[in-house]
Amino acid sequence: MNENDLVARIRALASSSFGLALGIGDDCAVYRPRAGEELLFTTDFLIEGRHFLRETHGAADVGCKALARGLSDIAAMGGVPRFCLVSLAFPGDGKWMDGFYNGLLSLAREHKTALAGGDLSRSDRIVCDVVVCGSAPTGTALRRSGARPGDAIYVTGALGGSAFGLATKKGKAWKRHLRPEPRLAVGKALRTKYRASACMDLSDGLSTDLHRLCRESGVGAELDGDLPVFPGASIEQALHGGEDYELLFTVPAKVRIPEAIQSVPVTRIGRIARDRQRRIRIGGGFLLQPLGFDHFRERDGL
Amino acid sequence: MNENDLVARIRALASSSFGLALGIGDDCAVYRPRAGEELLFTTDFLIEGRHFLRETHGAADVGCKALARGLSDIAAMGGVPRFCLVSLAFPGDGKWMDGFYNGLLSLAREHKTALAGGDLSRSDRIVCDVVVCGSAPTGTALRRSGARPGDAIYVTGALGGSAFGLATKKGKAWKRHLRPEPRLAVGKALRTKYRASACMDLSDGLSTDLHRLCRESGVGAELDGDLPVFPGASIEQALHGGEDYELLFTVPAKVRIPEAIQSVPVTRIGRIARDRQRRIRIGGGFLLQPLGFDHFRERDGL
Repeated sequence: MNENDLVARIRALASSSFGLALGIGDDCAVYRPRAGEELLFTTDFLIEGRHFLRETHGAADVGCKALARGLSDIAAMGGVPRFCLVSLAFPGDGKWMDGFYNGLLSLAREHKTALAGGDLSRSDRIVCDVVVCGSAPTGTALRRSGARPGDAIYVTGALGGSAFGLATKKGKAWKRHLRPEPRLAVGKALRTKYRASACMDLSDGLSTDLHRLCRESGVGAELDGDLPVFPGASIEQALHGGEDYELLFTVPAKVRIPEAIQSVPVTRIGRIARDRQRRIRIGGGFLLQPLGFDHFRERDGL
Repeated sequence: MNENDLVARIRALASSSFGLALGIGDDCAVYRPRAGEELLFTTDFLIEGRHFLRETHGAADVGCKALARGLSDIAAMGGVPRFCLVSLAFPGDGKWMDGFYNGLLSLAREHKTALAGGDLSRSDRIVCDVVVCGSAPTGTALRRSGARPGDAIYVTGALGGSAFGLATKKGKAWKRHLRPEPRLAVGKALRTKYRASACMDLSDGLSTDLHRLCRESGVGAELDGDLPVFPGASIEQALHGGEDYELLFTVPAKVRIPEAIQSVPVTRIGRIARDRQRRIRIGGGFLLQPLGFDHFRERDGL
């Protein structure tokens, strides 16, 4: 099979264009912005041996996760996904490719996200890079930088499930690792209904990601509530485990947050503090170190 | 150095944001479309061992070319570049990374293209994937599909230089291979002034790319002019060599095209023919086969 055949095959799989002016097949895809929208862009790698193993992660799981990572970033800004661009370097195995695109496109259809284009190349090691474009009314996208002292800190769902699943490769935790659910409906509600002051998704672990939120907002934090730990996971997995793709958000103290938003439980875990050194205290004393996933530190993802 | 430090370093290098509402550092970058524009998106891999070798291609050359490929696609649609997203997986060598971003950002500044975001990962083999977003007034972007029987076929510049340079690694041809010049000014003029009926960039060789243009337009072609061959290159390199990044375009027969557009020579190489089988005849008889670069056929890029 040559490159033209592969592109034709992907084009046939990506039947719906969800309002794109021009999809796969030209030098560029064309998107016509709607009046009053700002566009959100995020890009994420998924690399064999780094983010997944071919032996344990099925082709459809890989395709699904490659897109889920980007959708989760759109959720974190309170956006609505519009389209994605998928670059895939792989050994040229057509069956694996079909599985990958079927997994990716089933999640794309669920969230009305068009496959607008991408690139194909041959490589022994599978590398994919997915860009997702989302939309929000101009000036309303949630950012990491808006948290203020006194704001309450919340997380959605339960933490540590993905790390626990990766360690055990069993049950709901493993499914959680393989098929994370981007919290798009929650993110949109946080933007439109709950006026969250800051929001981000938990991709590298609470301890690392909360430090990032604090740094961008110029504040510290105090964790004083019980963490919602995924059944079976350790407290370390909940604090430092990556790839939960839950949302971490802050709201002014006076905003009432229900126990669940869009059927997803939310838990108050602490509050934002005034601290020029942007430290995170836990249980009133100890400092929380950013020990989550870091591609350029000693640990590996798998 | 950890991931946060690397991101901070890239953020410092990418000082200018050229009108982005939000750049590097949040879950997504934010772009606010201007009234009346449609947005063009393209994505291209540049993979070590496939598209370049670390021994012969300097870090700045790799950065420059990674962006040039996408800018060339924007040129092919007659667009104006707005921003790019850069995903880079590399062994973690800070010096190489600085060279890469310096090369990429110098070309970005030249074309007022903001670095909006990206992703970083660690990998023994260098992989980068660059998305470029460009803009054109709604409904005006040039496409591959508009060529009609009788239209004249043109190319910019000279062909085969990149393939010749890759073979010899010397002189102007090698420089041409390392630092292709995206034909943005020509593309814009083809859209605004010369009303080109179809346009694409030559990334995989004339023989392969002209077949793609004919397929999308549902036509055949006859090559009857002299090809503009890069000095020293063979006719095979001019017909089938990849990575020239010149523009291939068609105009209705009555449109007068000057000898140069925006100081770049243009040459008439043939005309579009009515042919349901979308064949390309050369010199009145022989059929031209698509023998340009194909990632999924036998030959390798290097």
